[in-house]
Order: sequence, then structure tokens, then C-alpha cells
Amino acid sequence: METRSDDFYPTRLERPSEAFGRLDPVIHSTGTDRSQGPLSETELAQYDRDGFLVFNNFLDPETVRRFREDLRAYENDHSVLRSEGTITEPGKQEIRSIFGIHELSERFDQLTRDPKILAIVHQLLGSDAYIHQSRINFKPGFHGKGFDWHSDFETWHAEDGMPRMRAVSFSIALTDNTPFNGPLMLVPGSHKTFVPCVGRTPEDNYQSSLKKQELGVPNDRDLGRIVDQQGIKAPTGPAGSLIIFECNTLHASNANMSPWPRSNLFFVYNSVENQLDQPFCGNKPRPDFLGNRSATKALQPVNTGDLQKTG
Amino acid sequence: METRSDDFYPTRLERPSEAFGRLDPVIHSTGTDRSQGPLSETELAQYDRDGFLVFNNFLDPETVRRFREDLRAYENDHSVLRSEGTITEPGKQEIRSIFGIHELSERFDQLTRDPKILAIVHQLLGSDAYIHQSRINFKPGFHGKGFDWHSDFETWHAEDGMPRMRAVSFSIALTDNTPFNGPLMLVPGSHKTFVPCVGRTPEDNYQSSLKKQELGVPNDRDLGRIVDQQGIKAPTGPAGSLIIFECNTLHASNANMSPWPRSNLFFVYNSVENQLDQPFCGNKPRPDFLGNRSATKALQPVNTGDLQKTG
Repeated sequence: METRSDDFYPTRLERPSEAFGRLDPVIHSTGTDRSQGPLSETELAQYDRDGFLVFNNFLDPETVRRFREDLRAYENDHSVLRSEGTITEPGKQEIRSIFGIHELSERFDQLTRDPKILAIVHQLLGSDAYIHQSRINFKPGFHGKGFDWHSDFETWHAEDGMPRMRAVSFSIALTDNTPFNGPLMLVPGSHKTFVPCVGRTPEDNYQSSLKKQELGVPNDRDLGRIVDQQGIKAPTGPAGSLIIFECNTLHASNANMSPWPRSNLFFVYNSVENQLDQPFCGNKPRPDFLGNRSATKALQPVNTGDLQKTG
Repeated sequence: METRSDDFYPTRLERPSEAFGRLDPVIHSTGTDRSQGPLSETELAQYDRDGFLVFNNFLDPETVRRFREDLRAYENDHSVLRSEGTITEPGKQEIRSIFGIHELSERFDQLTRDPKILAIVHQLLGSDAYIHQSRINFKPGFHGKGFDWHSDFETWHAEDGMPRMRAVSFSIALTDNTPFNGPLMLVPGSHKTFVPCVGRTPEDNYQSSLKKQELGVPNDRDLGRIVDQQGIKAPTGPAGSLIIFECNTLHASNANMSPWPRSNLFFVYNSVENQLDQPFCGNKPRPDFLGNRSATKALQPVNTGDLQKTG
């Protein structure tokens, strides 16, 4: 495989290559676009330094309850269970993730167009944005498996053709995050370094990688050095908490060893100025539910002041 | 398989059976044996209630360092690597556990006969005691796997013929325990309930169960109820910390998601009045390195005030 001249973050290589500093800003807005909020300079500085921000009680309990009811309804909906975007636990009808949830759920769609959220996204990405991927995750008590350390950008670049680091993820907890139900773990500051990964990507890699990621995982030496220097944070908090994290922030989660399920809403904004190209790994693009190529116009805000009254 | 009339804790059953309250005291000493220390009444009450106690900085850093050096030496010692008591990671030379370590290491043997430790053991078990099992555990960075929830007594009763709950485990950390390197997790108060487990025990079950325990694991319903009511604690602390836990306390550990290895010394005292019988699961006894039947005389204290000067 030849490296393309427009590939600023070569990965899935034949042999190991040194990690290097990111080539893109972390916060893309400037001037009044940056200074007029909604995030304060302190919050922006923290996001710039750590690669993530945490807001407890972002969604009110009633809205959380309605999203959880939706999730339960999906578990009994055969058309949802059979859809390609629904990933079940190996050999079971138990849902692990439903992708493309913003197209399935009016409530979720409205949430992604919440004016305050879009204003934050605009401030971070320095432009309008659209949804690159959305999903609802479900990690059942005792049996939910973990995910190894990875950068989402590494996969989105290699397998979806996302050119630059100009995307941001929102994760909203629908259950309390405790230290024991496999919460999201992040490495503060890791978003500043790109770690090229070794290994050619098979076609349709996503069919196995959504259950267990084998490719696009940094080697132990690079990972060990970064984590040892920068540490690990696992924000805990009540249902309704929001974690915003930069697309290149290393993250992982451990198995759920508790009886308490863990579910969350997850959606990724990509800048309209960072539209997907051909995948840099050389394969054909992944399906739309993983890397959206069809609805990439700037999202327009809708008033969701009373999200809980929908549906 | 018929249940023996001397089996007070039937387990490995053909069909599910209700959990029931333990038939043995948690603290076996009475009168002055109990009141003269070394544990205070407050500590005893806590052990009685929770099933465990934590002492940070129990071993000094120099002693910890020497034990870690010993561990490194074992990793390069072919006779240790080939011994039946050495469990390596699947397909690797990397040590996961070395059993029978008190017979291999003068330093460890002395530690198990430390006068203060033996006095605590006497206070908890109400008698002299001997080592039922000892081992050193090693959970490497990133690749150390977890262990599901279990009661050690359940296995020792079924597979080793330990008649009653009159044993206590000591776990001493040789590395810092952090929330992210797979620390020991315990369920406070779980030692008060015996949860019979389902499933006939295959002969030589230990050859696979030491890598991944499938039998002797409570069902999700019982486990969920107990953990949900009583919670989970994962003591963290610096290298040298000691956790004492009752033989029936439910415990587990998650995978090591950090670059920081986790190793500890682990040794179990059984009361000399609670000698092993034929295994209650009906199989032949496990090897001595797992359930010692040959050196079961009361341990005599040795002065280890300067453990670090040995060897």
C-alpha cells in the first residue's frame, strides 16, 4: 500500500513507526467565535490540555428515564434487532450497541441538535458540524466486556477517510457511572500525540472490530510510555452526566464486574470542513451507520428545552 | 453424588439451591484470647461485619523491594518455571502465579511465621494454624486478566475437603494498588452467606480453574442480590499494604488496564482444628501446593523484626 500525499496521519503500517505530535489544533475556533462561549476560557484551556471535559447532571432525570425506556423498547423490537446497525452480544439477543440511533429516534435526533450542544461543537470545531456516527451502548451487569485502549480518530482516519483531527465525541450516561461497572477511562493529554498502528486492515474489519478491536491498537511500548507519564482518569457520576472528548484522546473501558448495567448515548460531530475522503487504509468505505457519508450538511439547532415532552 | 452427613456446606450441586447463613462464627476466639489483641475491638467488629481489614504500609519499602527482587529472580529460574506450582500465562513464559512459595522462599516462610501475624491469626481463628496455601501473584501491565466473583471457601470445601469456615487469607501488595491495575475487590458482609454453586466438578479441575474459574461461581441472581445490597470495595494503597480477608468473603478482580504491573503475596491460614478431609465434591484431593495436607502442624513464630536482612 502506498501512502497518499494527502495522508497526514499514516497508520495500519507494515512496520512500527514513531508516534508524533498532532498537526491540527485542539480548539479550532478563534477570535469572538472562541471567546463568546458557551464554554469558558477555563473550560477551553482544560479541554485543550486534557482532551476531555465532564459535566455532571447535564440531562435531567426525566429525560434520562425516557431514553432508558426507549432502549428497553428497542430490545423488544424485531426490526431494530435485525438491523445491520444493531450489534448483539456474541450468540445472544442482548443488545451491545445500536448504531445510527439519531436516525431511529426522534428524541435522540433532537438531542444532537440541541442549541447549547451545537454551540459548544461550533466553539470546539470552529465551524458547523454534522453527525459522523451515533449509537447507544449497553453494558449489562456482570457480563459487559471491556474495550482496549484506542484513539477513535485512528480508526475514523484509516477506515472512514476522515482527513484531519476536527471531530468531537459526546457521551451521555443513562446509568450511574461507578468505578465498578466499566466506566470510560481516558488518558489526559493523549490527544496531542498520534500513535501509528501496525497491521493491514482486512475488508469488512468492522464486523469483528465492533466486538473486539484487534487493529488500530497502539503497541505496548508507546501506550505504556504515554499512560505512565500522563495517568488515567475514569470520571464517575450520576446518570445524566456528559463527557465531551476530542477524537484523538486515548480511551478504554474495563469489564463490568458489578450487577449494575451501564448504558450511554454516544454521538460524534465532524466539522463540515472535514468531510470524509476515501479510507486511508485503502479499503472500501464502511457502512453509513459507522461513518456517515450521506447526511453531511450542517446541523440546524432545534429547541429541545423540553426534550422530555417528545414522543 | 450423595451428600455426606458431615457436609455442612453442600455445593457443586445438580440443581440450584438457596443461599443460607454461615454456620460458623467469623471470629473464633473468646474471652482473653479475643480481648488481648493484637487487633482492637473496633478492628474485630469491622472484620466481623465486613469480612476484611486493610492495613496500609504493613511491610516496609526495603522488605517489599527484596520480595520483588525474588520474584524477578524466579522468572529467570528454570527449575521454578518448570515446577507444577508455577502457573504461566497461556502460551507464554510469563509467570501468573507461583504456588507453594513459602516452601521455596526462606524470606516468605519467615513472613508467614511473623509473631504479630500469627497472633492476629490466633485471635481470628481461635487456635493455632498452618498454611493451607501460599502463592505469589503477578498481573502484568495491560495483559493481566481478571477473576470472576467467588468465595475461596467454596472451592476449598468442595475441592480440598476443608470442613468449616475457619480460615483466613493475607494478601500483601508488592506494587501500588491503583483503581486501574486490577486491584482486589471485595463485597463487605458477603462472608455471612454461603452460596451453593451448580455443576459437577471434573477431576483435575484446577488445571483449568487456575487460569479461568468456571465452576464454584455463584449464579447471577444470588450474586446480583448480594452485591447490589452490600456494594463493592476495592482498597487501594501503596506497596506494602496488607488486606486480611475471611475465607468466605466474595472477591474478584478486573483486568489490568494500566501499564503498571500488580503483584502480591498471598497466604492462607487454616485452623489446626479444621484439618482437611476428603474433598466434598467426591474427587481425589488436589495437589499439596493448592491444598496442603502434609505440613499441618501449628506454625511456630520466628522473629522477623528484620526480615529484610534475610537472604
